[in-house]
Amino acid sequence: MTDIYRFSPGTAVGDATMTALLGLKGASLAELCRIGVKTPPGFTLTTEICKQYFTSRRQLPEAVKTEVRQAIAALEQQTGKRFGDASDPLLVSVRAGAKVAMPGALKSVINVGLNEKAARALGKKHNDPEATTNMYHRFIAAYGEAVYGMDRDELDELCSAAADDDAATLQLLAVFAKHAGRAFPESAEDQLFGAIGAAFESWRSPKAERFRVANGMHEDDGVACTIQAMVYGCFSETSGAGVLFTRDANTGDKRIRGEFLQKGQGDELRQGVRTPLPFTKAQPKFGVQTSVEEGLPKIFAEIVAVKDKLEAHFRDMLEIELTVENGELYVLQTRAATRSPRAALKVAVDLVKEGITDERTALLRVEPDQIEKLLHPNLDPEAKRRAIAKGLPASPGAASGAVVFNAEDAIHQTKAGRRVVLVRNETTPEDIHGMNAAQGVLTARGGMTSHSAVVARGLGRSCVVGCSDIRVDYNQKIFTVPAKDGSSDTVVREGDVITIDGSTGEVILGEVRTVMPQLGDDFTTLIGWADKYRKLAVRANADTPKDAEVALAFGAEGIGLCRTEHMFYRPERVLAMRELILAREDHERKAVLKKLLPMQRGDFVQILTIMRDKPVTVRLLDPPLHEFLPNSDEEVADLAKALGMPTKLVRQKRDALREMNPMLGHRGARLGITWPELYQMQVRALCEAACELKKKGIETKPEIMVPLVMAREELAILRKLVLETIEQVSIDMHAEVKVRLGAMIEVPRAALVAKELGALSDFFSFGTNDLTQAALGVSRDDAGKFLGAYVDAGILERDPFVTIDREGVGELMRFAVERGRAANPTLELGICGEHGSDTRSIAFSVELGLDYVSCSPYRVAAARLAAARAAL
Amino acid sequence: MTDIYRFSPGTAVGDATMTALLGLKGASLAELCRIGVKTPPGFTLTTEICKQYFTSRRQLPEAVKTEVRQAIAALEQQTGKRFGDASDPLLVSVRAGAKVAMPGALKSVINVGLNEKAARALGKKHNDPEATTNMYHRFIAAYGEAVYGMDRDELDELCSAAADDDAATLQLLAVFAKHAGRAFPESAEDQLFGAIGAAFESWRSPKAERFRVANGMHEDDGVACTIQAMVYGCFSETSGAGVLFTRDANTGDKRIRGEFLQKGQGDELRQGVRTPLPFTKAQPKFGVQTSVEEGLPKIFAEIVAVKDKLEAHFRDMLEIELTVENGELYVLQTRAATRSPRAALKVAVDLVKEGITDERTALLRVEPDQIEKLLHPNLDPEAKRRAIAKGLPASPGAASGAVVFNAEDAIHQTKAGRRVVLVRNETTPEDIHGMNAAQGVLTARGGMTSHSAVVARGLGRSCVVGCSDIRVDYNQKIFTVPAKDGSSDTVVREGDVITIDGSTGEVILGEVRTVMPQLGDDFTTLIGWADKYRKLAVRANADTPKDAEVALAFGAEGIGLCRTEHMFYRPERVLAMRELILAREDHERKAVLKKLLPMQRGDFVQILTIMRDKPVTVRLLDPPLHEFLPNSDEEVADLAKALGMPTKLVRQKRDALREMNPMLGHRGARLGITWPELYQMQVRALCEAACELKKKGIETKPEIMVPLVMAREELAILRKLVLETIEQVSIDMHAEVKVRLGAMIEVPRAALVAKELGALSDFFSFGTNDLTQAALGVSRDDAGKFLGAYVDAGILERDPFVTIDREGVGELMRFAVERGRAANPTLELGICGEHGSDTRSIAFSVELGLDYVSCSPYRVAAARLAAARAAL
Repeated sequence: MTDIYRFSPGTAVGDATMTALLGLKGASLAELCRIGVKTPPGFTLTTEICKQYFTSRRQLPEAVKTEVRQAIAALEQQTGKRFGDASDPLLVSVRAGAKVAMPGALKSVINVGLNEKAARALGKKHNDPEATTNMYHRFIAAYGEAVYGMDRDELDELCSAAADDDAATLQLLAVFAKHAGRAFPESAEDQLFGAIGAAFESWRSPKAERFRVANGMHEDDGVACTIQAMVYGCFSETSGAGVLFTRDANTGDKRIRGEFLQKGQGDELRQGVRTPLPFTKAQPKFGVQTSVEEGLPKIFAEIVAVKDKLEAHFRDMLEIELTVENGELYVLQTRAATRSPRAALKVAVDLVKEGITDERTALLRVEPDQIEKLLHPNLDPEAKRRAIAKGLPASPGAASGAVVFNAEDAIHQTKAGRRVVLVRNETTPEDIHGMNAAQGVLTARGGMTSHSAVVARGLGRSCVVGCSDIRVDYNQKIFTVPAKDGSSDTVVREGDVITIDGSTGEVILGEVRTVMPQLGDDFTTLIGWADKYRKLAVRANADTPKDAEVALAFGAEGIGLCRTEHMFYRPERVLAMRELILAREDHERKAVLKKLLPMQRGDFVQILTIMRDKPVTVRLLDPPLHEFLPNSDEEVADLAKALGMPTKLVRQKRDALREMNPMLGHRGARLGITWPELYQMQVRALCEAACELKKKGIETKPEIMVPLVMAREELAILRKLVLETIEQVSIDMHAEVKVRLGAMIEVPRAALVAKELGALSDFFSFGTNDLTQAALGVSRDDAGKFLGAYVDAGILERDPFVTIDREGVGELMRFAVERGRAANPTLELGICGEHGSDTRSIAFSVELGLDYVSCSPYRVAAARLAAARAAL
Repeated sequence: MTDIYRFSPGTAVGDATMTALLGLKGASLAELCRIGVKTPPGFTLTTEICKQYFTSRRQLPEAVKTEVRQAIAALEQQTGKRFGDASDPLLVSVRAGAKVAMPGALKSVINVGLNEKAARALGKKHNDPEATTNMYHRFIAAYGEAVYGMDRDELDELCSAAADDDAATLQLLAVFAKHAGRAFPESAEDQLFGAIGAAFESWRSPKAERFRVANGMHEDDGVACTIQAMVYGCFSETSGAGVLFTRDANTGDKRIRGEFLQKGQGDELRQGVRTPLPFTKAQPKFGVQTSVEEGLPKIFAEIVAVKDKLEAHFRDMLEIELTVENGELYVLQTRAATRSPRAALKVAVDLVKEGITDERTALLRVEPDQIEKLLHPNLDPEAKRRAIAKGLPASPGAASGAVVFNAEDAIHQTKAGRRVVLVRNETTPEDIHGMNAAQGVLTARGGMTSHSAVVARGLGRSCVVGCSDIRVDYNQKIFTVPAKDGSSDTVVREGDVITIDGSTGEVILGEVRTVMPQLGDDFTTLIGWADKYRKLAVRANADTPKDAEVALAFGAEGIGLCRTEHMFYRPERVLAMRELILAREDHERKAVLKKLLPMQRGDFVQILTIMRDKPVTVRLLDPPLHEFLPNSDEEVADLAKALGMPTKLVRQKRDALREMNPMLGHRGARLGITWPELYQMQVRALCEAACELKKKGIETKPEIMVPLVMAREELAILRKLVLETIEQVSIDMHAEVKVRLGAMIEVPRAALVAKELGALSDFFSFGTNDLTQAALGVSRDDAGKFLGAYVDAGILERDPFVTIDREGVGELMRFAVERGRAANPTLELGICGEHGSDTRSIAFSVELGLDYVSCSPYRVAAARLAAARAAL
């Protein structure tokens, strides 16, 4: 079969599905022809030819050239013009097209086939020598740029600086010859093959490569090249070139938006040399008096009809590129329009209401990330901004506020009524209340799942992490952005106002206007559809009553992870926790535990009351104890004083608890084994809370989750402890509650011995963050220095802390699912790591047959959508 | 079938193999009867009865009691005496016996059946009332202790303090009644069942439990109880009781050693109330004038004959317990004798030479650990010592020296001619040269595979780690051992001499005499046999020419792990390394790399020259870079000065490089990806070294190993780098060398993607230390706080850093072996972690089908033996 696909109105070999072979452009042109929308005839060289080109020492094989010549001959027949003819030549456009839109990355050249003689003849024919000369100049410049990598701006300048058109032509040709080392090709065929080569070459350009890597595409995929007969928008008042969106790309409203350059060509429109017309009268007019609707009503009506036809056919909001030649409308390209999150939501829902698409399609048309972005205030895209640094966009939304450098200041200033942004090298659990007080958090270190990032997302605070451009100096309370080139460093002092954009990673000096999200009915409608189609349950990670309320508001079906340690970080409780850790005698410890019990029980009562009949999974204490102790010698001295202990002793104890690798340290279930009283207290607090509510007639679903389990006997010991405590509470309180017990699967060994663990568990909850750290041997706190390089080099397809690494972590999860269910067919399975809200990871969870995911409250809605999409 | 096994000379139901059912005692008595060695008749209650006892509320079931009565009746018939008879009663011994010897942990009572009346009658019969009264007293005391937990010493004292024998009897009985809450049982049957109960109970005593846990035995195994008719060594000059070793337990020489108490019973011999006779005239006499050989020549001849018969039968050196009654010899028990490492070696080899056993048996009779102990100087067991603290025995051998508290002092003092022991909280790679200079290393923290332990073993230095009894104060240069009870703390200052015993973990004040090992011919013979039977190759981990020489001397068949970073820690080189890390410009880095190249090449030339045609596996740089930078601000300032950099900058750089979890940080292959020049330099150094030698006619086998690999593409990139560098060197040096390339499998993901890695590797080397850390989520540096509890609670069968965890780590290894070999059938597989020298792990390696293990040079011989044992 041939690798050249011809198309002309009413007839085409390919169709819209063949993007991998024909590129998005080639496929959509074939489709347009198939459905009878008028477009100039042409043909597409497939991605297969691109591959041949690269394997044939970057040459088109002779057989391909012959086929191209035959296809050109067919075009000549269809248009009645001859390629290379001197009087009324056939001109063509040559465009590279990948299977997805790669804005600005690939090369296109229009007006191929033009030379000096032909330009003159065309000028005479259309009675507009100026327009054709201008066309010719633009062609030389575009060709020089595309094929020989010349500087387009320089060439354009040359034209405008020249004394007259002839002088400009001479200069252009001279510069071209000098740079290219050969004269400008007068032969139409030479031009054509040169342009095709340039189209293929652009697939390997640095720009295209960056795009490919970022979007997970492979060099081997190749690019298609579409050759199409030119029509001319530039020779009459009833001619022009335009680009329109079938709906408003910002709001999603059903109204045409776009620009039309009367008496111009598409490349001129993009270059913006003249002010174009708006399409409708409702559209803002910038310095022009009319619109296509008013000035060219007949054409406008035709455009509206074509737009409706195309929307109905492609069942989506579209971007349409068109040319009008002497009142004749040609569609040159059409593709799904890029749109804002807000527009995506509205369009998806509207199209269903209009009977154009169905619910399933609507769900597939809105990205979960877009839903999430709708939930956070965003920088007003119209507002001016000066970014001084850029980090990782860790938690979406924008925040402005005065810079503070520690959690205490953040709390203090907020109480005093100021809005602040907390800036740290990195955050620790001690900073949580400060992070909560602040509008946003900026850190110099850490990755997308560093402590700062995770906590900020959980709190719904915008956050930029790993901003290695900044140098934080806590002593002077400043941060510095070293100058890049000659200019002086930017110094930001405490109290200076900055704005961070958690959706882009930008750090901006001063305040930038933000826009608040409005969810409304479309959101409710779409998420309602999502719930109809998804099977995977979505729970939230929530540690406080407030978290639980937010989670419920976003439709969480339970709490999948309630981290009890966060309850201990509250300032009034951390002292008790420290007292517990530093206690020397058993009776002291018992006394402190007695003090902590009612606090913990109170938290649970509140959370269980909010969640009612929805499951609440409480994780027993997980972090290593040293996380609760202060770091600085000053704080140690204060603590010693507060507890009436010798400072030296406190320091010794702190030093003794310190760990080389806290991630792999004395934490999780290991605390429960070495210090059972602590877990007992926590279990008792939860059971007592549930019993208390039961007596009031409120049935709850408490669940207990043991973190960092690695062995059967370990779980057996802790299970016994839990069951005995539950029994004791039921005796003490004269009430019985059912508490389910599960294991967190977060060390590789747990996945491997899942059969033994499954027999002792009601559920498994995958702690995919830690499982990723252990399986890959990568600390998420330290990964910033190399993980980027690993993703860039294609060693890891994606950041494994964002998307579950299927080959490694995924395989361990598969073992755990298979082995766990083999031992216990009713075993419930879920994810409670950060991956719970990642679209790809949700899809993987569906594939694995998990029962639920649990994510930050603010991500619940997005996860519900993602779960539905995965099910479709 | 009955659960009571009777035995009498010439006839027995059981045999020596039935230790699990009959206990070691019961089984060996049955065996003695089977082979016709004279022993009094008796019967054994099996471990099954023990289980019944515990499941029947700690009572003997009635059916068992009936059977016991029948067995007693049979004994009465065989001996012609009656149990409980008042004139010439049958007395029996009641002894608990587990399947292995548990010295001192289990209970035995002899002379059961004795009461006041019988004692008198016996005294009259043997014309020795004093002896029988004494017997009676000892019986009351022994019974009180065994059955009622009374204090034996107190009871004995009571006897010696009493005015006369009758008074003693009265007092004993009174104290007994008071303590036991009942009168001393006069009934023989009551005594018997009481003693049997005590025997079973002793299985659950704390002493027995500790022993069980330490030896991996289970409570459910139960203990047997052997009842045997008494014979009397106490009633004539041609009577007595003795214990002998068939060979010298210290040296292994073929000569009887042991003690014989003339006119005495076995319990008296053990109590040491009178000075016993030596067996032979050659044996030292302590305060006695004769020996059994001289004084009782006929009996001695009989003993020699029995000893030879038993050695030949059991094919081992034995410990024999015997009683002589009126010139009649009875063997009461025989078992394999406990022996020193030196004796174990000699006996194993001698028995083969004497034609008693074969080579295979000899190999199974010497533990690899014993071989290792032979290689280090040990504390003279005769010397007095006062242990002030105890830690983990991390590296065998003993060392005495003045205490120093940092590596620099260790080097300095050693240069000044002093022997020192380095005491630290923990050691870091910077301390290596100090550790090498010191005689031994003592640390307050860390486990059996902590940095200190690993390095010390590698260096062959004795080492005690995790000695949590001590408090190190670097400022005052002292360490303190807090007092346990009232007394004052022990303070050890810099310069004080201590001795550490790396085989026991003891820390001793002052110097203790040591004995040096002598290997000799037996060693060579045994290891020669080992090499004949093993299939697994044994290489050594060696980082320096000296290591390589030691390794070769111990028979290493190559170097399986040459850690290049250790080459950089040398004082004269670490500065260059630091310069490299701190360099700001590319050209600076290149300059330093040029400086490092010849140093590294020089190391390789030396090592390759030593190893010649044996493989040398070089691991590319592995540790995170911050390990090369100084910690203290002082050192930072010095470094900045040395490099002419601003101190602030150096500090910033150091802080920026610091990691939360260095174990999971920017290290291994990740350095190679982000900093290819460094790996290039290392590969070049190795290749140039090999080429240089090749030109001199020396063929070598260099191998390159990439650490911490986790993904196919990562290995592909580094493989390309290595191959290109090799090619470049071969062009530059006009010589070609073959360099094999392998991946370290030390993160779980690597094991899971082993198929992809296998296709790119000549070999896999399991880094089982790191693989264990990641698979279990346990940092070996921090595990000290809970790993002990995990092993004690049976959660982990053994310390996973000592013995490979089969269920977790082992399963990952199995994946890697299967998948790697599937992709590459010629893939070579080895272990280079600390596990390479652990006997059980070596057995597992054989099971997995690995090709080699690599261990510390000093462990090579032990590993060779272990590999042979695993093959048998």
